[in-house]
Amino acid sequence: MVEPLPPSIAWSGGVEAPLELLDQTQLPHRIEVLRIDRLDDVIAAIRRLSVRGAPAIGVAAAYGLVVGVREFAPQTDQEFERAISHVGDALKASRPTAVNLGWAVDRLLGVGAKAPSLQALLDEAKTLHREDRESCAAMGRFGAERLPDRGRVMTICNTGRLATAGDGTALAAVFEAKRQGKEIEVVACETRPLLQGARLTAFECVAEGIPVEVCTDGAAASILRSGVIDCVLAGSDRVAANGDAANKIGTYSLALAAKAHDVPMYVVAPASTFDLSLSSGDEIPIEERNPDEVLHVLGQRIASVGARARNPAFDVTPAELLAGIATDRGWIDPVNAENVRRIVGG
Amino acid sequence: MVEPLPPSIAWSGGVEAPLELLDQTQLPHRIEVLRIDRLDDVIAAIRRLSVRGAPAIGVAAAYGLVVGVREFAPQTDQEFERAISHVGDALKASRPTAVNLGWAVDRLLGVGAKAPSLQALLDEAKTLHREDRESCAAMGRFGAERLPDRGRVMTICNTGRLATAGDGTALAAVFEAKRQGKEIEVVACETRPLLQGARLTAFECVAEGIPVEVCTDGAAASILRSGVIDCVLAGSDRVAANGDAANKIGTYSLALAAKAHDVPMYVVAPASTFDLSLSSGDEIPIEERNPDEVLHVLGQRIASVGARARNPAFDVTPAELLAGIATDRGWIDPVNAENVRRIVGG
Repeated sequence: MVEPLPPSIAWSGGVEAPLELLDQTQLPHRIEVLRIDRLDDVIAAIRRLSVRGAPAIGVAAAYGLVVGVREFAPQTDQEFERAISHVGDALKASRPTAVNLGWAVDRLLGVGAKAPSLQALLDEAKTLHREDRESCAAMGRFGAERLPDRGRVMTICNTGRLATAGDGTALAAVFEAKRQGKEIEVVACETRPLLQGARLTAFECVAEGIPVEVCTDGAAASILRSGVIDCVLAGSDRVAANGDAANKIGTYSLALAAKAHDVPMYVVAPASTFDLSLSSGDEIPIEERNPDEVLHVLGQRIASVGARARNPAFDVTPAELLAGIATDRGWIDPVNAENVRRIVGG
Repeated sequence: MVEPLPPSIAWSGGVEAPLELLDQTQLPHRIEVLRIDRLDDVIAAIRRLSVRGAPAIGVAAAYGLVVGVREFAPQTDQEFERAISHVGDALKASRPTAVNLGWAVDRLLGVGAKAPSLQALLDEAKTLHREDRESCAAMGRFGAERLPDRGRVMTICNTGRLATAGDGTALAAVFEAKRQGKEIEVVACETRPLLQGARLTAFECVAEGIPVEVCTDGAAASILRSGVIDCVLAGSDRVAANGDAANKIGTYSLALAAKAHDVPMYVVAPASTFDLSLSSGDEIPIEERNPDEVLHVLGQRIASVGARARNPAFDVTPAELLAGIATDRGWIDPVNAENVRRIVGG
């Protein structure tokens, strides 16, 4: 079995403490906690995916705001205001797709405008951190309602404890189902290029005693066709007002295959992942990452010299391919603008 | 640029010469030619994919029969008959999905029954080798008819010179289109687990001066959705009588995505890849390969300890998802049992 992991994100102490991030780029082969006290290092950790998963990025950015403002050592309210604005912009620009990042930063900016103190920012970040744990628990409960008593769930990327500050989004439903006595097996799509499925989801399932099989992303469609999968669960990085959901590259492919074989596909995501300012998924910005992630695997060159690569980090699954979205406030089903507004619009 | 490659398969000399196979497991990083004079080594080379691609496996197996029978040094016709039968069975069992293997072995068995001599077997193997080159040229000409004057083709696995004894199947169409002055760019799905797209197709395109971009298998659907792909080309390892086509794992996923976005998907395969004894793709045997291929990349462990893996090497694309099959005898279009019989049944 595998050794227990430190939390994905921690802040142990007061306003002078470092932000602690479990370095997910090295998992499952090496467990290293980064202790960060500079804004540049927070941003670099978010960019290289040392911390990843939409909810976890939100919590990390909230603490990152504390780290960044502290670095400026503002002496007056005006300096504090300038610092928080600068730091907030820098954090928001670090990754474009996950809306939780901007949502978390904006929440702290609101607090900072009223109470310009590091302690107030840290208190709010800790509140947000606690809320994320509660949100995961709620998603787990709602999500588990649709899991069979005994069955097999296919998933992509990592949506568990590593992707959040709590139990996860989609994987939280699997963990909760297990606590309820359901016998769930997981088939984890490996999720190239960065292999979050093979590295992280498999790791979390093994740690939890949940049987897990890894498959290549290209094998998912024929496994779905073979009839052994009861449902597909995915997280999301941003859901538009009509229910179109951006998620890790490969999710759309999985959704098409699930639809072709009448396997229900559910997204599990908190209210903070919804961006009601966007009418459809076409408006969601898609991060293009370094082509080297595709041309290499874990640092080793795979592709021929002279080849270039495309590396969109996310794709958009249209609402009509989803059999429901489990949020921390309940199910959106059927997935349409009216139900999105009703469940997470308030 | 890349250095020119030795041929995928060669036999330089008479009945005492070794079988020469370019070791494709090491490409594009290392160019090594295996000189093989034992049946076990032929079979091991086929199994570990040192030689791969349905047509190339057929040619390699034909020469493998010469190697194997020679090893038995039969002194009488009866001994020759026993040797060829044993060697033929061993070769046919080496990989289950590609029908060209059994087809090539059966052709040599027929020759050996009439003329029990190594020279007769070698002559037939060389004839089959030459025919494969001609077959590739024909597939290239037919396939190129449907390629745009200027456009972008998505493909999966490797279907070029490395997969055949000639120019290839699907990639032969791209090479021929280039010779005709068409400006084709290739988007190569990397093709996990063994990365034939990133390693081999990219290599062949670069060597030919054809612009090539690699993408992860999971990214194909969203790239197809973005409208930048004119058609999808794939090879096949076995086509059933109704036109259902087995090919490298991931092809079915690609076909679903191509259909969803009205991008025509063509299979390019010689008549020898058709198995008219099977009424549909459901009857095609699918090779399950070692799970370690999924749990590792190029020898490096990626997946968590405790995780298992599924590793089907092929999937089946139903005829209705194909806009046509280019064979060495012309186009099958629409793809149905009647047209399959008409074009390759004779």
